[in-house]
Amino acid sequence: MSRRRRIYEGKAKILYEGPEPGTLIQFFKDDATAFNAKKHEVIDGKGVLNNRISEHIFSHLNAIGIPTHFIKRMNMREQLIKEVEIVPLEIVVRNVAAGSISKRLGVEEGTVLPRSIIEFYYKNDELNDPIVSEEHITAFGWASPPEIDDMMALAIRVNDFLTGLFLGIGIQLVDFKIECGRLYENDMMRIIIADEISPDSCRLWDVKTKEKMDKDRFRQDLGGLLENYREVAKRLGIMNENEPPRGSGPVLVKSD
Amino acid sequence: MSRRRRIYEGKAKILYEGPEPGTLIQFFKDDATAFNAKKHEVIDGKGVLNNRISEHIFSHLNAIGIPTHFIKRMNMREQLIKEVEIVPLEIVVRNVAAGSISKRLGVEEGTVLPRSIIEFYYKNDELNDPIVSEEHITAFGWASPPEIDDMMALAIRVNDFLTGLFLGIGIQLVDFKIECGRLYENDMMRIIIADEISPDSCRLWDVKTKEKMDKDRFRQDLGGLLENYREVAKRLGIMNENEPPRGSGPVLVKSD
Repeated sequence: MSRRRRIYEGKAKILYEGPEPGTLIQFFKDDATAFNAKKHEVIDGKGVLNNRISEHIFSHLNAIGIPTHFIKRMNMREQLIKEVEIVPLEIVVRNVAAGSISKRLGVEEGTVLPRSIIEFYYKNDELNDPIVSEEHITAFGWASPPEIDDMMALAIRVNDFLTGLFLGIGIQLVDFKIECGRLYENDMMRIIIADEISPDSCRLWDVKTKEKMDKDRFRQDLGGLLENYREVAKRLGIMNENEPPRGSGPVLVKSD
Repeated sequence: MSRRRRIYEGKAKILYEGPEPGTLIQFFKDDATAFNAKKHEVIDGKGVLNNRISEHIFSHLNAIGIPTHFIKRMNMREQLIKEVEIVPLEIVVRNVAAGSISKRLGVEEGTVLPRSIIEFYYKNDELNDPIVSEEHITAFGWASPPEIDDMMALAIRVNDFLTGLFLGIGIQLVDFKIECGRLYENDMMRIIIADEISPDSCRLWDVKTKEKMDKDRFRQDLGGLLENYREVAKRLGIMNENEPPRGSGPVLVKSD
């Protein structure tokens, strides 16, 4: 495994060449970054948890007909995925105001938005991932109008599913980010969900206590990130009740 | 005239109650502001020039069937306009990269854009007029989807007209900003162009020398703002050849 080719290294994941053409291996690192990597820390065990939570979500998305790049989890830190051409956009769906929308548009954190809002950000670290509109996306050719429609439709479906999934375990889905990719298969191209969906890419608040259970714990120096990610996994039913000692990595129950 | 009621005072204009219901008087001040009024200066005669240039443009827009709030110029600093309910958006049309798009999206100033791009900014000084997308506009109820369509269609028509108008006099229309309003008339509501169109709200570059002939002269401390606005007016054929002494205000030829 150590000789396989590294395709891409991001802030929280590495992509390696997969065992077959058209596949990749997605490796989850323990690195936590925020504010365009100005803030950085290694949180022992985060990658293992995100791998497992993202597997849980993506396999359910696949099951309900929302196409994703996910094929299967391979081990504690790795997933087998389909190789796609990543659309250089972050697609954010917001149900409740928090983070940048609160600051940019002066909406108090915690305000339920009049309706879910989809935002696009241009993936470009040098430019700090600026927010963009369909006009910029189509003018600069980052995606076509039908692709934008597909991504928005997928984003809304994911929002519906995730809202339900988390509500059932006492967690409010405030917002989340997805990335999409173009999958070329049988002389066809279609847009599918790529990357990951985990507490790194969602804002998750405990319904009762309003406690933050996501990466804002790191961004805002609240502490207890790992404990909260573990709690999310536990409520999702994908972790043993007994927490492992710190450093040994979480004990995970077998995939359902 | 001094007793008439002031309805609204902005950074560069004042609106007074008009002579008849449904009308207002728009007064052009000499104030130049930039960077959300952090930079401010009074430029003797700017209001007179903008009043005249904006009159010239708006009367031609009316003539080609692009609806505006403009009725007639009343004197050196004032116009009679229709009262509208202002949509709280600035609509920017860009043909060439300059200003915020260059900075936000890393496009070098002067780059011709792949196609004209329409942007919306939420008019809110406290928030520094943040850029927004149709998603924000409709979710927060700032305008409806048909109103957005109307505003975009008007913006494209204005861009077509202005591009031609300025090209004919050796000036490249880099970008411009318009504001729109809802006009209630005969139990109908329609979107029309409001505010002003002048070198304060456009980026205008001399085709040959690439010299800036707009408010960037103030924003970037280039000097010679009044001289350039006067040159724009002169090329538009609305000013005498002989420049008046500074302070006396420009000599304007009679409206055609």
